Amino acid sequence: MSKLVLIRHGESTANHDNIFTGWTDVPLTEKGISQAHVAGKQLSHSGIDFDIVYTSMLQRAIVTSYIILNEINQAWLPIVKSWRLNERHYGALRGLNKAETAQKYGDTQVREWRRSYTTVPPLLGHEESSERYLKLGIKEPLGESAEMSWKRVQPFWEDQIAKQLRSEKNVLLVAHGSSIRVLLKFLDRISDDNFMKVEVGNGEPIIYNFDQQLKVISKSNL
Amino acid sequence: MSKLVLIRHGESTANHDNIFTGWTDVPLTEKGISQAHVAGKQLSHSGIDFDIVYTSMLQRAIVTSYIILNEINQAWLPIVKSWRLNERHYGALRGLNKAETAQKYGDTQVREWRRSYTTVPPLLGHEESSERYLKLGIKEPLGESAEMSWKRVQPFWEDQIAKQLRSEKNVLLVAHGSSIRVLLKFLDRISDDNFMKVEVGNGEPIIYNFDQQLKVISKSNL
Repeated sequence: MSKLVLIRHGESTANHDNIFTGWTDVPLTEKGISQAHVAGKQLSHSGIDFDIVYTSMLQRAIVTSYIILNEINQAWLPIVKSWRLNERHYGALRGLNKAETAQKYGDTQVREWRRSYTTVPPLLGHEESSERYLKLGIKEPLGESAEMSWKRVQPFWEDQIAKQLRSEKNVLLVAHGSSIRVLLKFLDRISDDNFMKVEVGNGEPIIYNFDQQLKVISKSNL
Repeated sequence: MSKLVLIRHGESTANHDNIFTGWTDVPLTEKGISQAHVAGKQLSHSGIDFDIVYTSMLQRAIVTSYIILNEINQAWLPIVKSWRLNERHYGALRGLNKAETAQKYGDTQVREWRRSYTTVPPLLGHEESSERYLKLGIKEPLGESAEMSWKRVQPFWEDQIAKQLRSEKNVLLVAHGSSIRVLLKFLDRISDDNFMKVEVGNGEPIIYNFDQQLKVISKSNL
């Protein structure tokens, strides 16, 4: 038996301002910090002993994980930060206000961009080169559909997370709307069409129990 | 060329209360949190780009490192937490007030216990078994001299820190009074006798510049 707890970061300044974000490294708001503390307290009551923590290379997820680890008195746990768990890259939508974009392109188009599994956002015109990814030899995407983001999450699932779960380790994963949505699609076998309906709230823990063959035994919220 | 920055955690509740601590996992005080922010701001002005962060498995060092990483906008850096960087284990002195202990055993004895390289503190009567170390297959020491703590820091220096520095990586190490004092003894070639005089303040960065043969080119404070 092993447990996987998925938590989306607390509210970020971009969430608050209703802005497409992706790989832009925005901080948590006061509300986001408080959501992380609440999630930590909930987890603390659940009494789960974790073995390892995975998060992205974006501070809204990293700081959320730190706050949670302090709340559960497990600050000493190993923590692995991977670009593979980053939010989906929103391409040229990045930095745009979602409501203004809907006024310009229509609700249906914006809903597609936000919720569809396969729709690719308008791409950036040229590659960017943030130092943290260059150091790892990673090129930043020009933009990603949810499906494209799954293609980079999936190897991390196999090589790291699933490996831990098969060894009966309990895993805490603190990541983003899209990187968690594609994991839910995979774990809950959600169709491409139904993926539109999958939502993940800020700081709301989702708990999976697995057997050693990595079959989902149960799923619950706290 | 590579840089190593050593920082002792900010003031802990045990520092504040003048208590022998060692492996006991006490939190930072408000002053300690503020010292960590100040150290982070100083480092931020220094403009050093780090590649990796090492810290202990004790929250006073871990939380100090988190605060510093946020201040220098490098929250995404990989962070390795190792028991080998823990504070020296104070054995049966743990939890005792330093001033009261000095009244009972005399200033000279307490100074020996605190500052000597080779003096072993009174040992615990039996082994303890904290879950975090059991998981790693590590037995908690019954008590350690500074020299005994160097015997566990030294392999970590060789296998991890020195390896990074030789590859021209910049390393941030956030640890404890003793785990930093023994590193200073090694790097500055301080004799056992002179080790008594080595002090490290809370949250005060010490910067080493190395050449590729790991020769110290320069050392400075911020």
